[in-house]
Amino acid sequence: MTTAETKKSLIWTDIDYEKEGKQVGYLHLPHSVTRSAYGTIAIPIAVIRNGDGPTFLLMAGNHGDEYEGQIVATRLIRELQPKDIKGRVIILPAANLPAAMDGARVSPIDGGNLNRAFPGDAEGSPTFAISHYIDTVLYTKADYHHDLHSGGSSLDYMAFCSARLGADEAQNAKAIEALQVFGAPLSFVWAHSPDNRLAASAAIRRGVVALGGEFGGCGRVSVPNLKIVERGVRNYMAHAGVLKGWTIQRNPTRMVELKGRDYYVYAPEPGLFEPFCELGDMVKAGQPCGQVHFVDNPAREPIVTHFRRDGLLVCKRHQGRVERGDCVAHLATDR
Amino acid sequence: MTTAETKKSLIWTDIDYEKEGKQVGYLHLPHSVTRSAYGTIAIPIAVIRNGDGPTFLLMAGNHGDEYEGQIVATRLIRELQPKDIKGRVIILPAANLPAAMDGARVSPIDGGNLNRAFPGDAEGSPTFAISHYIDTVLYTKADYHHDLHSGGSSLDYMAFCSARLGADEAQNAKAIEALQVFGAPLSFVWAHSPDNRLAASAAIRRGVVALGGEFGGCGRVSVPNLKIVERGVRNYMAHAGVLKGWTIQRNPTRMVELKGRDYYVYAPEPGLFEPFCELGDMVKAGQPCGQVHFVDNPAREPIVTHFRRDGLLVCKRHQGRVERGDCVAHLATDR
Amino acid sequence: MTTAETKKSLIWTDIDYEKEGKQVGYLHLPHSVTRSAYGTIAIPIAVIRNGDGPTFLLMAGNHGDEYEGQIVATRLIRELQPKDIKGRVIILPAANLPAAMDGARVSPIDGGNLNRAFPGDAEGSPTFAISHYIDTVLYTKADYHHDLHSGGSSLDYMAFCSARLGADEAQNAKAIEALQVFGAPLSFVWAHSPDNRLAASAAIRRGVVALGGEFGGCGRVSVPNLKIVERGVRNYMAHAGVLKGWTIQRNPTRMVELKGRDYYVYAPEPGLFEPFCELGDMVKAGQPCGQVHFVDNPAREPIVTHFRRDGLLVCKRHQGRVERGDCVAHLATDR
Amino acid sequence: MTTAETKKSLIWTDIDYEKEGKQVGYLHLPHSVTRSAYGTIAIPIAVIRNGDGPTFLLMAGNHGDEYEGQIVATRLIRELQPKDIKGRVIILPAANLPAAMDGARVSPIDGGNLNRAFPGDAEGSPTFAISHYIDTVLYTKADYHHDLHSGGSSLDYMAFCSARLGADEAQNAKAIEALQVFGAPLSFVWAHSPDNRLAASAAIRRGVVALGGEFGGCGRVSVPNLKIVERGVRNYMAHAGVLKGWTIQRNPTRMVELKGRDYYVYAPEPGLFEPFCELGDMVKAGQPCGQVHFVDNPAREPIVTHFRRDGLLVCKRHQGRVERGDCVAHLATDR
Amino acid sequence: MTTAETKKSLIWTDIDYEKEGKQVGYLHLPHSVTRSAYGTIAIPIAVIRNGDGPTFLLMAGNHGDEYEGQIVATRLIRELQPKDIKGRVIILPAANLPAAMDGARVSPIDGGNLNRAFPGDAEGSPTFAISHYIDTVLYTKADYHHDLHSGGSSLDYMAFCSARLGADEAQNAKAIEALQVFGAPLSFVWAHSPDNRLAASAAIRRGVVALGGEFGGCGRVSVPNLKIVERGVRNYMAHAGVLKGWTIQRNPTRMVELKGRDYYVYAPEPGLFEPFCELGDMVKAGQPCGQVHFVDNPAREPIVTHFRRDGLLVCKRHQGRVERGDCVAHLATDR
Amino acid sequence: MTTAETKKSLIWTDIDYEKEGKQVGYLHLPHSVTRSAYGTIAIPIAVIRNGDGPTFLLMAGNHGDEYEGQIVATRLIRELQPKDIKGRVIILPAANLPAAMDGARVSPIDGGNLNRAFPGDAEGSPTFAISHYIDTVLYTKADYHHDLHSGGSSLDYMAFCSARLGADEAQNAKAIEALQVFGAPLSFVWAHSPDNRLAASAAIRRGVVALGGEFGGCGRVSVPNLKIVERGVRNYMAHAGVLKGWTIQRNPTRMVELKGRDYYVYAPEPGLFEPFCELGDMVKAGQPCGQVHFVDNPAREPIVTHFRRDGLLVCKRHQGRVERGDCVAHLATDR
Repeated sequence: MTTAETKKSLIWTDIDYEKEGKQVGYLHLPHSVTRSAYGTIAIPIAVIRNGDGPTFLLMAGNHGDEYEGQIVATRLIRELQPKDIKGRVIILPAANLPAAMDGARVSPIDGGNLNRAFPGDAEGSPTFAISHYIDTVLYTKADYHHDLHSGGSSLDYMAFCSARLGADEAQNAKAIEALQVFGAPLSFVWAHSPDNRLAASAAIRRGVVALGGEFGGCGRVSVPNLKIVERGVRNYMAHAGVLKGWTIQRNPTRMVELKGRDYYVYAPEPGLFEPFCELGDMVKAGQPCGQVHFVDNPAREPIVTHFRRDGLLVCKRHQGRVERGDCVAHLATDR
Repeated sequence: MTTAETKKSLIWTDIDYEKEGKQVGYLHLPHSVTRSAYGTIAIPIAVIRNGDGPTFLLMAGNHGDEYEGQIVATRLIRELQPKDIKGRVIILPAANLPAAMDGARVSPIDGGNLNRAFPGDAEGSPTFAISHYIDTVLYTKADYHHDLHSGGSSLDYMAFCSARLGADEAQNAKAIEALQVFGAPLSFVWAHSPDNRLAASAAIRRGVVALGGEFGGCGRVSVPNLKIVERGVRNYMAHAGVLKGWTIQRNPTRMVELKGRDYYVYAPEPGLFEPFCELGDMVKAGQPCGQVHFVDNPAREPIVTHFRRDGLLVCKRHQGRVERGDCVAHLATDR
Repeated sequence: MTTAETKKSLIWTDIDYEKEGKQVGYLHLPHSVTRSAYGTIAIPIAVIRNGDGPTFLLMAGNHGDEYEGQIVATRLIRELQPKDIKGRVIILPAANLPAAMDGARVSPIDGGNLNRAFPGDAEGSPTFAISHYIDTVLYTKADYHHDLHSGGSSLDYMAFCSARLGADEAQNAKAIEALQVFGAPLSFVWAHSPDNRLAASAAIRRGVVALGGEFGGCGRVSVPNLKIVERGVRNYMAHAGVLKGWTIQRNPTRMVELKGRDYYVYAPEPGLFEPFCELGDMVKAGQPCGQVHFVDNPAREPIVTHFRRDGLLVCKRHQGRVERGDCVAHLATDR
Repeated sequence: MTTAETKKSLIWTDIDYEKEGKQVGYLHLPHSVTRSAYGTIAIPIAVIRNGDGPTFLLMAGNHGDEYEGQIVATRLIRELQPKDIKGRVIILPAANLPAAMDGARVSPIDGGNLNRAFPGDAEGSPTFAISHYIDTVLYTKADYHHDLHSGGSSLDYMAFCSARLGADEAQNAKAIEALQVFGAPLSFVWAHSPDNRLAASAAIRRGVVALGGEFGGCGRVSVPNLKIVERGVRNYMAHAGVLKGWTIQRNPTRMVELKGRDYYVYAPEPGLFEPFCELGDMVKAGQPCGQVHFVDNPAREPIVTHFRRDGLLVCKRHQGRVERGDCVAHLATDR
Repeated sequence: MTTAETKKSLIWTDIDYEKEGKQVGYLHLPHSVTRSAYGTIAIPIAVIRNGDGPTFLLMAGNHGDEYEGQIVATRLIRELQPKDIKGRVIILPAANLPAAMDGARVSPIDGGNLNRAFPGDAEGSPTFAISHYIDTVLYTKADYHHDLHSGGSSLDYMAFCSARLGADEAQNAKAIEALQVFGAPLSFVWAHSPDNRLAASAAIRRGVVALGGEFGGCGRVSVPNLKIVERGVRNYMAHAGVLKGWTIQRNPTRMVELKGRDYYVYAPEPGLFEPFCELGDMVKAGQPCGQVHFVDNPAREPIVTHFRRDGLLVCKRHQGRVERGDCVAHLATDR
Repeated sequence: MTTAETKKSLIWTDIDYEKEGKQVGYLHLPHSVTRSAYGTIAIPIAVIRNGDGPTFLLMAGNHGDEYEGQIVATRLIRELQPKDIKGRVIILPAANLPAAMDGARVSPIDGGNLNRAFPGDAEGSPTFAISHYIDTVLYTKADYHHDLHSGGSSLDYMAFCSARLGADEAQNAKAIEALQVFGAPLSFVWAHSPDNRLAASAAIRRGVVALGGEFGGCGRVSVPNLKIVERGVRNYMAHAGVLKGWTIQRNPTRMVELKGRDYYVYAPEPGLFEPFCELGDMVKAGQPCGQVHFVDNPAREPIVTHFRRDGLLVCKRHQGRVERGDCVAHLATDR
């Protein structure tokens, strides 16, 4: 039976993945609409190949409002030359291109969150057609992968590189090693991860060594975090054996992890959220995390919410207004 | 002839501005739409009166995505009691209520920016009806005024209290004195201000001593900036003579000003903006301010933009994506 | 100086108001948009003239979601012949045509509420251009006017015919007399009316004898209310001297009035409103009117609201969901 | 193969369905969007457990603009205590929470109609994720179920409780018995029901005894219908054996049914629909049901539509404007 | 297992496909939304039957902004009588009715492009429910099929009739023969067609002889192209044996084909596209096709794009503004 | 009194209109919104000055979906050098920039049609702020003006250059002379023009010699019309004395005019319009112009509309779908 997974992608490209040298071009996703009957969504891609060796797939713009990765990937496309490479580097600087151009987490075309769209559908809406292509065409070619994130418009993160644990311990060990080589000040292991629709989950299912990371957030471009990403990606590429002439700079990194649902705090009511703590604080179970104010009804008492366990405050909600059920904070604990 | 200025507001309230004691209620702006034929927009207001004395008008939520002021104003409504007051305090915690509930600079109803809507129009769209009421009913009652801002979703500011210079030197002097009493680490004078549609401009035209300020930004709630506002507003109220039992805490403040259009830097092209500097940096004329990247066309070279004069970087664009013509930075110089 | 009031309408028509006989055609309001560069909004109109006599202007569709009047006006256009008329009858069955076609109170083009748009603006948005035409071209021709309303989607009304009091006592007396001739079971006098932007207010300023009425509501078509309107309009036209061969059927009517803001009850909080009373109930000051439930937070206690004076419950909010500040009920008292 | 039906729900909750006592909390449906990267839709739920016994699942807000059930369910959550219960009562007062908060039949997030979304999809859009949870987690726990409806914004119904016939005659008999115990003045059997995507269809497939009902309509809250629901639900819960201390009040009820497509009448043309009959009328095949008027073209003759069989008029379209193909009426016949 | 393909359509109709004579009616697609709980989308259909013979299915309005076919189909419905027919003619003049009423390629309800929606889904969104009905109910009845297109709003085409090649050579031969009988000045064979979601692909899979064609474009109604379609459709119907009394007029036709991706040219950058060639031009590989201007940045040089092979320019983008990846031209070569 | 006309524009620019040489830059219109608190709309402008002489203001993009002028103006900005000029040329290639970037007649920001927005308002919405700047800053500098149009998305025009008659006969004569010098195959005089809100009307009120023209239409870029504009604009500039080294090429031109409302034909009903004539046809009063089809109700007879006078068909509606009141054709008569 033909299922979503076995269908062939309708995305086409003039890029030849097997060709030597550097190509910068587009993946063309057919998108036939009133404005353009034979339109395509042109997703930028670069392939730099120099002889045999592993394939490293660098991806940014999975979420369109996470920018450090997009800038670093764009810069690498211009800077890297075939002579710098051994094997093959594939760079997708704006994987969910419509979202990236919109400065939004999700695509303005179909509302799709690419990082909740794997393994995708060749004939689905654009976000699902993209995830399907990445999964069936790119993940099947890759040995190493980095999917660069930055928290997005709604979250403020202490910058970290991360790994997600899969079923294969050897593959996990390689990811942890790569994480240490990347050398961010903070390294994060997602030891609780109930959702399998993520890019990283799909890559791991394909046997790829995959890293992630949240290099800041708030929809901002952070000057210091850009530096962390620039150096770390090169460390990782050198470690993978695809980047020549780069000396890995080992840096001390604090290893933390998230192990359950109680690491998260959610808004108890819609309103304006006043946080009580700062990123980097060590907090205690039961400690107040913040309170919701009602500016439309100032006589109403604010409602306080509390941390549910001890930990390091690595993530806060960025924007002031909340809906009930929004995550306002999450913790990590040392690993 | 009947003009916008001479029309009587259609906004009504059960609040009696002359009554002793504390009242928390609403301004009702009639808004007759399909969803509610006899609907009103209920804008929260509090009046606390205790005998004779000056009138202090505290306003927040002029821009809906600027939160420190909204929280402090909401808290003061709950905390202040008639015994704490001499004269009258009027508090509008969410002046453009639809914008505040939407977490947006402008009203979702009419797209109106309240701080570009003065002197307003009694029969205009909601934002203009609000500014008309504030101008004709509240500014005519007030002796002192504070309109609390925080940069909004698109700007990141070093927190400061500010004054805007009008035609009356005595009134200006009083504002500068109040600015110093407020005691923020940074104090700002708007010496170049070509737009007369601001709340502060209207208040000054009515002879009110008026302060402003940008206490942070990015659409975030800042824990330290909240403290600056909480203390400064009380200092200012005590200085105005309406707050009893509060000892003004004098703090050193750096006085800066903005004197012309060359303090601003604008995006030269649409794209993803990478800033080169941080808030608090002292920059030089001609120094690169940042560059615009093209993630949809990574082969295209970024376009750099430069500072046009020396100064202190007090304001940066927050969000990564820019349109041509967006302000990406502005400076101040010591006064 | 050229002001909105003195500008000449851009609306044109092939109808000749002075011509004998029956014409059914359109008012063409130029509306140049992307979809149609030389487009016009074609507002239906009929003129039936037979010799000398008064001019009666029947209008419906001022609010697009009030239907009894639209049906009766449409039917009269088809049924009335010149021989039935003495003088001139002008019928606008869908005055705010875009709103009528949208089944909405306000126009989907500009959000305009025609009954809050008088005296209008020849060069304003469509709703204001319509009100300007009615005011400057039609009200200047009319001796008698009926503007038929039905509460709209958000209100449920006991059906009544109504008059609004102006400054001219003689004109008021004529309106009250016409109200009694109309002969609805309930007759209503708006003795408190702070808003001058209504069609009726404009007609009265032009010296026209003007009736209104709310013949039901909820966005529904009521079978019994259609009969009230059909008969009453003919009574009124015969009384005005423009309808021949119709014997006025005198009916007993209960005369009530609304005299102040305390006749209204507003929602105290957003949520789901449960009313406690029915239309036609006599209620007492302090009696509970209803309560707001919070289905998203069922542990929160409902908030009750009360009537502020004694009276007859003539109007209730129709829809279950409310925003704070929505009118949920209004009363009338016997006159 | 993994299919929609076999996937595990991503919805989580702090509620423990097996715990004794009363819990009021939320189902958290992860919904990762630009506004909130780690957002959840928080759907209210209450579980009241007292020892062994059957499980009764009361649901409202399947359609967001049907209110009697939402109010009764919300009130029961506050009023019922463990001592009143034997076994377990689960209450979902606003099953499609986004629709309920929007006062709409369908969800504003995905346009989803929850009652056309069964059996759902764990990884589908929010409406489908909700139906999947209800089907796989709640219907597998329930013995008795009531899904409370009220016609919605577009339909006006004679209030009735209803049952839908499934393949299992014993289960059908239990439903008919429960219907009689409920004791609404009118009881309705859906003997023609070609669509299997309804909540009731899914519950029946799971072997649950399931009732429905349309307790009014028009998007209104009806005072008398609230009483019918309040009493009937308690009767049903007592009959099911989960409500202690309630004496079932037997009421006479008229049993009717709908047996085919010819019970329905549809609008023949877009326009303004004038009905000719009232709810409760007994009508004849061929009798005119109403006519469509063209207020934008009043010279055009209205188009009449007719009933296709004899019956009791139990349902009318509420709103005046129609599109071709809208149901304007449906009948029932005595059973 | 129940899959999308095996589900039964929920669309119903009063049309009896087996009945002798002429029926004009509707397919009713249930669409339950807030505006109409029991609403249906009423898709017009006509069936004309006269004794035994083949079934010819004429379809237009697959894309709502392609009009020549809609006009011809509508006219044929009014003009054809049973006596003119042998066998059965089924006419769908506006297959994607919501798109046709919107003058758009895609449906305003679900954004669906009917010609990318086959084989559809009985329980999917309206566009997919329509394609499912056409595929399972109509294509299984048809012997001959014509799906009339006209390029749509975004493309300008030299008018041609077309055939698409399938796996069955005999069926292909019949289609080519029908293409020649149709007798448009230009006849087109789609020899490269990677997308199987088209109506024609589905019809061919069902063994139906199927023609297509692009009879103009730009969202316009072309007077000469209407004549080509009127005559050609009758030729085709007579050839199929369903139209009596029509003498096939043989016309010379130029046979062309499209054989690969290099026949297409795409916009290299967003902006304003200036074409350099006209429809009907014979162009050469490497020849400039047009250039993109940047009116918002007039100092930037335009970017030129080129043809990738020789051929006849049969299709140009109509609208001036382009996004990167839009098709701006495609070629054909003689067959 | 301060009125819209006497207010000073808030638009600023780094362009110095008095400076010698060529400047390409922007008009910055402050537009403070949530996305950008200190945003400006950057409208491109070029000024080329070489010594004394007249000022020629070339404008395109008044309507954003009219492209020939935008391309010619953009090309002239790149090609013209100070040495080519005597006096001053000011070029606005995209006057209503938001509309031009949207490919729409009106601005997506405020719905404003710039050519119905004169004399504008300094503090109004963007479209009105632009017209105010053009009127008060540019028209007061200009001696000659050309506002280049092309019919827009909804109209198909025989390409012509045009003049509009004002009150000053000498100024009219100069415009007619310039029209002849421009040398389009067809020249058009607007002798009936009831709307004074056009750019040309404002320019004429300022005493500027002003030409217009509709150089095609349909939202397309026409290769031959581009050539007409390129040559004609240069002829006009040379005639005005600002373009050096260009020999005016005199071409025969057919002079036509439009003198009344009866030159226009409007759609009598919403539906799909089938035209009966082609551009360039000479038609007669009473001749059928086209008919409206009802594809959603194919049994309904089409409705025919007729020309109301004799004339040359210079303009047809482009798009197939019409609303009642859309202009479907207009004529001209020889002058």
